[in-house]
Amino acid sequence: MREGVRLERQYPRFSPCGVITLTTDFGLADPFVGVMKGAILRVFPSARIVDLTHAVPAHWPSEAGFWLTRAAEYFPPGTVHVAVVDPGVGTSREILLVGTATALYLAPDNGLLGPVVDAQPGSQLMRLHPDRQPQHFPARVSATFHGRDLLAPAAALLASGQCTADDIAVASADMVPALLEEPSEINNKIEGVVVTIDHFGNLITNIRQRHLRSIVEPVIWIGGQRLPLRRTYGDVAPGCDLALINAFDALEIARAQGNAAVALGLERGAKVIVQDGVRHR
Amino acid sequence: MREGVRLERQYPRFSPCGVITLTTDFGLADPFVGVMKGAILRVFPSARIVDLTHAVPAHWPSEAGFWLTRAAEYFPPGTVHVAVVDPGVGTSREILLVGTATALYLAPDNGLLGPVVDAQPGSQLMRLHPDRQPQHFPARVSATFHGRDLLAPAAALLASGQCTADDIAVASADMVPALLEEPSEINNKIEGVVVTIDHFGNLITNIRQRHLRSIVEPVIWIGGQRLPLRRTYGDVAPGCDLALINAFDALEIARAQGNAAVALGLERGAKVIVQDGVRHR
Amino acid sequence: MREGVRLERQYPRFSPCGVITLTTDFGLADPFVGVMKGAILRVFPSARIVDLTHAVPAHWPSEAGFWLTRAAEYFPPGTVHVAVVDPGVGTSREILLVGTATALYLAPDNGLLGPVVDAQPGSQLMRLHPDRQPQHFPARVSATFHGRDLLAPAAALLASGQCTADDIAVASADMVPALLEEPSEINNKIEGVVVTIDHFGNLITNIRQRHLRSIVEPVIWIGGQRLPLRRTYGDVAPGCDLALINAFDALEIARAQGNAAVALGLERGAKVIVQDGVRHR
Repeated sequence: MREGVRLERQYPRFSPCGVITLTTDFGLADPFVGVMKGAILRVFPSARIVDLTHAVPAHWPSEAGFWLTRAAEYFPPGTVHVAVVDPGVGTSREILLVGTATALYLAPDNGLLGPVVDAQPGSQLMRLHPDRQPQHFPARVSATFHGRDLLAPAAALLASGQCTADDIAVASADMVPALLEEPSEINNKIEGVVVTIDHFGNLITNIRQRHLRSIVEPVIWIGGQRLPLRRTYGDVAPGCDLALINAFDALEIARAQGNAAVALGLERGAKVIVQDGVRHR
Repeated sequence: MREGVRLERQYPRFSPCGVITLTTDFGLADPFVGVMKGAILRVFPSARIVDLTHAVPAHWPSEAGFWLTRAAEYFPPGTVHVAVVDPGVGTSREILLVGTATALYLAPDNGLLGPVVDAQPGSQLMRLHPDRQPQHFPARVSATFHGRDLLAPAAALLASGQCTADDIAVASADMVPALLEEPSEINNKIEGVVVTIDHFGNLITNIRQRHLRSIVEPVIWIGGQRLPLRRTYGDVAPGCDLALINAFDALEIARAQGNAAVALGLERGAKVIVQDGVRHR
Repeated sequence: MREGVRLERQYPRFSPCGVITLTTDFGLADPFVGVMKGAILRVFPSARIVDLTHAVPAHWPSEAGFWLTRAAEYFPPGTVHVAVVDPGVGTSREILLVGTATALYLAPDNGLLGPVVDAQPGSQLMRLHPDRQPQHFPARVSATFHGRDLLAPAAALLASGQCTADDIAVASADMVPALLEEPSEINNKIEGVVVTIDHFGNLITNIRQRHLRSIVEPVIWIGGQRLPLRRTYGDVAPGCDLALINAFDALEIARAQGNAAVALGLERGAKVIVQDGVRHR
């Protein structure tokens, strides 16, 4: 358990804008996401609900936290983000409510929100206590769908302004930390991992622009290949591999007009190393 | 054809809330769902439209009715539910309008709405007659996309309050019944089937909590396996199989942190039997 | 480059209705579509956003233009359509803004909007110039996600009425033409291609009803098969193949209650010929 997160009471500055985002591992084939939206609309009829992704690999919260951290800044201030990747549903794990200066986050306390808190050091940590406002929650909470029975109504109450975080949650001093470590930086060598592979086969890593700050001429190694760092896909010929800092400030390995993951035979978790070409000449 | 459904004129109590749900077998790769939403917004600009699922197996209405019955209660009173799984599009099958105390349902008359009517005995049955309000429907209705040309405008008219059911439909005394039978209960032995398999590989059956009421110690048999009834996934060790009553009041067969459908090699339609362990010891 | 498109200044008649549609090749597994919606809502909080499709084959704009042309008429007048299929992102290709009497279209200038302009001869062509209203766009536009950084805010400004097309774009005399040719008509023989295959395996071609106008008794040839033209799927026995004019005015090859693409072993690009049975008897 992480301890000593500063509780700066930033929450009172939160002013809801009526937007709720959903991030789950439910897929879209079943009505589970739709039912969560129904549960939101029952409490907050004019909610504007945006699907972030419902294709997080089942039972692996890391990818949800990765994307949530990077996507949140493009939403209006006052957005409530809900994430449900929850292998421990029905057990004693609690539901976290994280408040930053501009957004609220609700998710099971299983490490999912670790990256959000790491990226926003002054975040306020709370734990959902539906029994403080029982009239807003189902009399009988199911053992297997807290997304519908707890997180959806909580998000609707917060996003509509019907409740503040203090009304339905209590301060917490700790949380389960992120499962995914930050990149290591030793002797000007950066070592990270592929966190996710997108629809185009681009390999997206946990290395950010700032990790490369002290490197004069970055050289990227992945799966035994040595790749140049370029600005965009069009900077190399079709079919060639490259690395770039993508639109979410993440080092990405791509094949121009092709599928890097298939071409290089790599998966989530693959190691990525950045060295300084000037030093290794 | 089912006959003698009571027509209690419950419809007049219906007060639309502006929410429309969509359930189809269209998938999301084509623009068909988006075009239905456009057709709704043309008639009712502030409609709030929720996708329930668009992955019902093509040409098999049973799964749509199963989910619709179980999902509807989580939507606000006054919701209009539209379902389009319609192998008979363009033939003489008609479009049903079912009214309950709190919701309206529109779907082709092919058995899809059977489970909804079975679950709500006082439902009002009607048939869509667009020619009663021709100005609201396309002058030329296509032979292959009634979802866009008939159901979308009808739902928009009803959800916006521009028309009542009586304006665009006439009472009907019968309908095509549900294709899927209810579980049988003989000598304290319950026999049901797997209706659908969710994204996680959980096998979801048509057996409900109430079917188990007279059983002291339920023992579940499926595919030659004997499974215990537990409260939630976390109640068995990872990799173990269990049965539970899920969040939609359906008996479900699952593998903790695994995929039961793949592990057990079972499909939709698989037989499930519940016996009383006390009697069979 | 196409030249001489008439600029009839139809744009001033455009009155936004607040609806924005999205068509991309992003898929739904990643948060890219959700992030575009966030970027829209930051500028236009009450935007009503409809997904048309996000499954356009990666890096092939033709299918996007095909569907956009056929889907747009079912949306309310005043809709803004955004399409992002953009293999050239980050290179010097510009962003087109096409205005018709009832809708605006934003997309990279790569041929995607060719079919829209071909179908609406009086369309007005413009090019996006975000630097005319820099306060509405990100200070630093990414090299790889113009959908989020340019098209989303532009669509939000236009759909909300905060800006007119003249505020953020300048007139253009040419554009990259459509990649897909119109069907050829020689000696009463029509030759077209399969443009897309839908979720049901129906093969959808670029041949329209009007192409068949002079044919007395249409006979369709595809993949060595000779097929009749019927009105709807139910007009042949289950398992039989047929051709029909579908609900989007496109000649479609289908198998009743089956999958024509799998059954006939055909792909996008397959040739389709229509002859007159009367002449070839």
